[in-house]
Amino acid sequence: MQTAGEKLTALRRLMKERDIDLYIVPSSDPHLSEYIPDYWRIIPWLTGFTGSAGTVFITDIFAGLWTDSRYFIQAVNQLKDSGIILMNSVLSTRNDYTDWISLTLNSGDKLALDGRIFSVELTRKIENSLADKKVLFDFNCDLISGLWVDRPSLPFSLAFDHSVMFSGKERSVKMAEVREQMKRSGAEYHFLTSPDDIMWLLNIRGNDLKYSPLLISYALVGEEQILLFIEESKIPLKLASEFDRLGIVMLPYEETAGMLSTLISGSSVLINPVTTSTTLYDSFPPGMKIIEDLTIPARLKAIKNSTEIENISGAMIKDGVALTKFFFWLESNTDKADLSELILQEKLNAFRSEGENYLGPSFSAIVAYKENGALPHYSVTAESDKIIGKAEILLIDSGGQYLDGTTDITRTVSMGRQSEQQKRDFTLVLKGTINLALARFPAGTKGYQLDLLARKALWENGLNYGHGTGHGVGFCLNVHEGPQSIGPSPGTESRTVIEPGMLISDEPAIYRKGEYGIRIENLILCIEDTETEFGKFHKFQTVSLCYIDKSLIDISLLDKREIGWLNSYHTEVYEKLSPSLNPDEKKWLKSKTSSITPPSPLKGGTSRNI
Amino acid sequence: MQTAGEKLTALRRLMKERDIDLYIVPSSDPHLSEYIPDYWRIIPWLTGFTGSAGTVFITDIFAGLWTDSRYFIQAVNQLKDSGIILMNSVLSTRNDYTDWISLTLNSGDKLALDGRIFSVELTRKIENSLADKKVLFDFNCDLISGLWVDRPSLPFSLAFDHSVMFSGKERSVKMAEVREQMKRSGAEYHFLTSPDDIMWLLNIRGNDLKYSPLLISYALVGEEQILLFIEESKIPLKLASEFDRLGIVMLPYEETAGMLSTLISGSSVLINPVTTSTTLYDSFPPGMKIIEDLTIPARLKAIKNSTEIENISGAMIKDGVALTKFFFWLESNTDKADLSELILQEKLNAFRSEGENYLGPSFSAIVAYKENGALPHYSVTAESDKIIGKAEILLIDSGGQYLDGTTDITRTVSMGRQSEQQKRDFTLVLKGTINLALARFPAGTKGYQLDLLARKALWENGLNYGHGTGHGVGFCLNVHEGPQSIGPSPGTESRTVIEPGMLISDEPAIYRKGEYGIRIENLILCIEDTETEFGKFHKFQTVSLCYIDKSLIDISLLDKREIGWLNSYHTEVYEKLSPSLNPDEKKWLKSKTSSITPPSPLKGGTSRNI
Repeated sequence: MQTAGEKLTALRRLMKERDIDLYIVPSSDPHLSEYIPDYWRIIPWLTGFTGSAGTVFITDIFAGLWTDSRYFIQAVNQLKDSGIILMNSVLSTRNDYTDWISLTLNSGDKLALDGRIFSVELTRKIENSLADKKVLFDFNCDLISGLWVDRPSLPFSLAFDHSVMFSGKERSVKMAEVREQMKRSGAEYHFLTSPDDIMWLLNIRGNDLKYSPLLISYALVGEEQILLFIEESKIPLKLASEFDRLGIVMLPYEETAGMLSTLISGSSVLINPVTTSTTLYDSFPPGMKIIEDLTIPARLKAIKNSTEIENISGAMIKDGVALTKFFFWLESNTDKADLSELILQEKLNAFRSEGENYLGPSFSAIVAYKENGALPHYSVTAESDKIIGKAEILLIDSGGQYLDGTTDITRTVSMGRQSEQQKRDFTLVLKGTINLALARFPAGTKGYQLDLLARKALWENGLNYGHGTGHGVGFCLNVHEGPQSIGPSPGTESRTVIEPGMLISDEPAIYRKGEYGIRIENLILCIEDTETEFGKFHKFQTVSLCYIDKSLIDISLLDKREIGWLNSYHTEVYEKLSPSLNPDEKKWLKSKTSSITPPSPLKGGTSRNI
Repeated sequence: MQTAGEKLTALRRLMKERDIDLYIVPSSDPHLSEYIPDYWRIIPWLTGFTGSAGTVFITDIFAGLWTDSRYFIQAVNQLKDSGIILMNSVLSTRNDYTDWISLTLNSGDKLALDGRIFSVELTRKIENSLADKKVLFDFNCDLISGLWVDRPSLPFSLAFDHSVMFSGKERSVKMAEVREQMKRSGAEYHFLTSPDDIMWLLNIRGNDLKYSPLLISYALVGEEQILLFIEESKIPLKLASEFDRLGIVMLPYEETAGMLSTLISGSSVLINPVTTSTTLYDSFPPGMKIIEDLTIPARLKAIKNSTEIENISGAMIKDGVALTKFFFWLESNTDKADLSELILQEKLNAFRSEGENYLGPSFSAIVAYKENGALPHYSVTAESDKIIGKAEILLIDSGGQYLDGTTDITRTVSMGRQSEQQKRDFTLVLKGTINLALARFPAGTKGYQLDLLARKALWENGLNYGHGTGHGVGFCLNVHEGPQSIGPSPGTESRTVIEPGMLISDEPAIYRKGEYGIRIENLILCIEDTETEFGKFHKFQTVSLCYIDKSLIDISLLDKREIGWLNSYHTEVYEKLSPSLNPDEKKWLKSKTSSITPPSPLKGGTSRNI
């Protein structure tokens, strides 16, 4: 096996042969997906760094990695002796490396990259940052394939029909809806690059990726036909003949670019520049009218239909039952010395597996004890694995993929003692979770407008968290699936109007470095509320079902409305989950979900001033 | 006097001579200011429409006005028989006319406008909207001067020194600060087009405009000199010699463009494209390095220094005393049959005039009785003037310019009866005013992040208001003065970080069409709060001083914290204002500011559930 240093030397040799001054390697695949197949995990192979996000820059005398703050410590360790340095610790920019590129390159220099795994949006940004220099670009430069001898193959899994019982809408109906919207956008073609868009449109699923039930594919939707670019043997005969009937034509995945280049110049195509690779974008013939926007499936699938909503309610019960059984098991087994984060992660998945139509975890569950919880994106490894003690705080963020929905939930529980600070922190986070869940807002409100609701109680106490508050969630698709989100910056996602039918997470937090992390996350569904002379108003319905650890609540910090929410939520949790529990579990959940009451005013409670 | 029709005919004759297919007339002046001199009020002269915002489009067969919703009714009335139609009622776009232009013009057509009164940002937008057509542009086209016979002259007023006792900082110090920041931005020159920037920098004021104490001028700040483009006789000898000593060179206002064209090509200049006219922008020699950003004075003057903050406190007392005397007088005179909105407007200004260092109103005061209050930007005229009755709601939004600060305050009072709906509406608006005032937020928070605080109580009750929540306020300068603002959209202004020293308005509202309007506005000053392991936090201090009408409050809707705020605010109002009141006024204010207490729990108050 080659060392990172040897690989770098080989790569630089190729760069020299081609007169390349800067070569860029991203952590992305040709679909710009969140979870990428091993085939495309070039950075771990090249550098040893295994974080999920990063970009490597190589010149003849320098090699550096940009990543974000959650991976700084890991990167420093993994890059040791690789000859590659961590760049964010050198420059204090926030993962924005275009400034660095424009400082580094001079007129006449040549920048090369593999345009198959760079979005056209990103290469444009790179070009713009170099607009005032005469830099040469080679966006068709794959230097890796020739060097990576033992490269994993692309994943293979079989497609299966995602029944209309789950999806609530026939594929033919979805196809008609998409085509109607294409007409309105003036698009003769709609090129889909995100597998989730394609799975949704065709009512199929697969198992090509670890956490999302997707098949690697592209699709070109035309007025009469859909060209589906996919390894043909992935589609079973029965599906294939159904596809045939609907005008869905299968073509080899590798022929996507070639096919795009044969489109009639002057025709119009709708694409999303954030998820379309530079190579595929450049495949369109000159004179093609390219309309850039979110894809139509992305907008349509974000609004769950009534069948999906009903299915989600059912999935939430299964998921809540698994969590309840898990936490009951955990409390009954705390005396075992060998309970560790890794063991809990497996055990939780085992409980979920008992649920009907379970496909697997929707992401790598975070099971983080004590100070490990202070790392927002902590992922337990054999090295970091912690024995679960009987005193401190345990944070578990996990989710499942079911045929009837995707879940994502975080609970923070005390394993024994609760300090005053822990209770205060937990209660302030809980206030955030509750107040966002209780939001009522006019139609047209965007995600960034609601972010404050989750932070207000924290801000008032000099606390905050460094990530967004909520992400969109797919339906038996990606656990992180926009376009909607709730966060402090008005980026593309949190600028999306929150509409009835949208599912979104509600997850404020506190991270105390070296001490513990607290996060309370539920999924909330936007529903209609009321209509007045001031217009339509919407609200949320909390759909995740699992008790919230009362031992960590300081009741004096909650107001009447918040207490009301908690008690009625706990009543609902018990009513919906208890039918699937055994008597011991039931009794235990009953006490976990019993009502809380504010301190009596006659005894001098702290929440009143008269 | 020519009719609108005759003027239009004459204008079309000129358009024909020059082959112009579309001529655009804006409601702006060469400084892109909010309040513009009569000399530049072309639209009222041309069309009869007197609203402060609008754009007129003229082709050979069509003439249309775009304006915003607050002026729709007025425009329909004033445009009657003018041959000009109101366009926003035809197209349903929000004052964005570039779409219309690009639909209307064809390749080969010629679009003309007077680039002296169009920002370079706006002409760029127009050019971009026509990018795919070969339209000819003439941005140096003044067709009005030749037609407007009795055009008013440009205003003339004398400059006066704005003492360092008020401004807190010598002009020489400000000049050094600006030059230091110019160096950091890499700008050899800084071209200032906004009179408020220039007044602030040079510590002078004047009286060229109705509501802002400004002198019409431009300034080019260089490393050694400042070229001040102004009618020279506006500067008294003593100031002129002080200017001379500091390297401030006066040049005729009309020579600005000519002077800019003589700058050395290749040198760098910092400008704000939003306030720089197309003509002046185009005057820079080719090869000039133009840096575009907010101006340095705009950023610096938004953060009030400690002297300014102390002065503002004093101005608020004078302003509050005037308002208190006014409302006392009003309550003592409600039996007079002839009290009308216009009379109240004058009377209020008379009370303000008694204050030391008062210069005049900071904008045209809104005095709106009953349904007039439902028009957010209502301005009383002889025609709309309403007799003040003894029952309904009266909204008064007014402010003053003092040498020691600029004020802006809205109070809504009941003239007699209060319906349940009015009390509920008033209290929900008050909750908004209070909750924004009570905000605590981390350093780096932007205006759009705080907007929700003012709306939350309204949204929860199916209510809302259609304007922003807060605007920046100048110091003896413009009453609307950014860059900071608080509003629901993350535009340039509400994307500005709210920093300690910034003064901003806090003005949620409810408008019930045909019934009444309620708005409660205070100015709030951002100050430092605390620093924790999560960073620095800021908060606001309410600086406006005037009682809030308790007869309109439904106490059961206020929580403990809100009641606490109101009582302590009223205590402060009384303590600070009463020393300047006569015994009758004092007694009256005492009762207006007495504490409110929530209903007793033992008697079954509505705000508790136990």
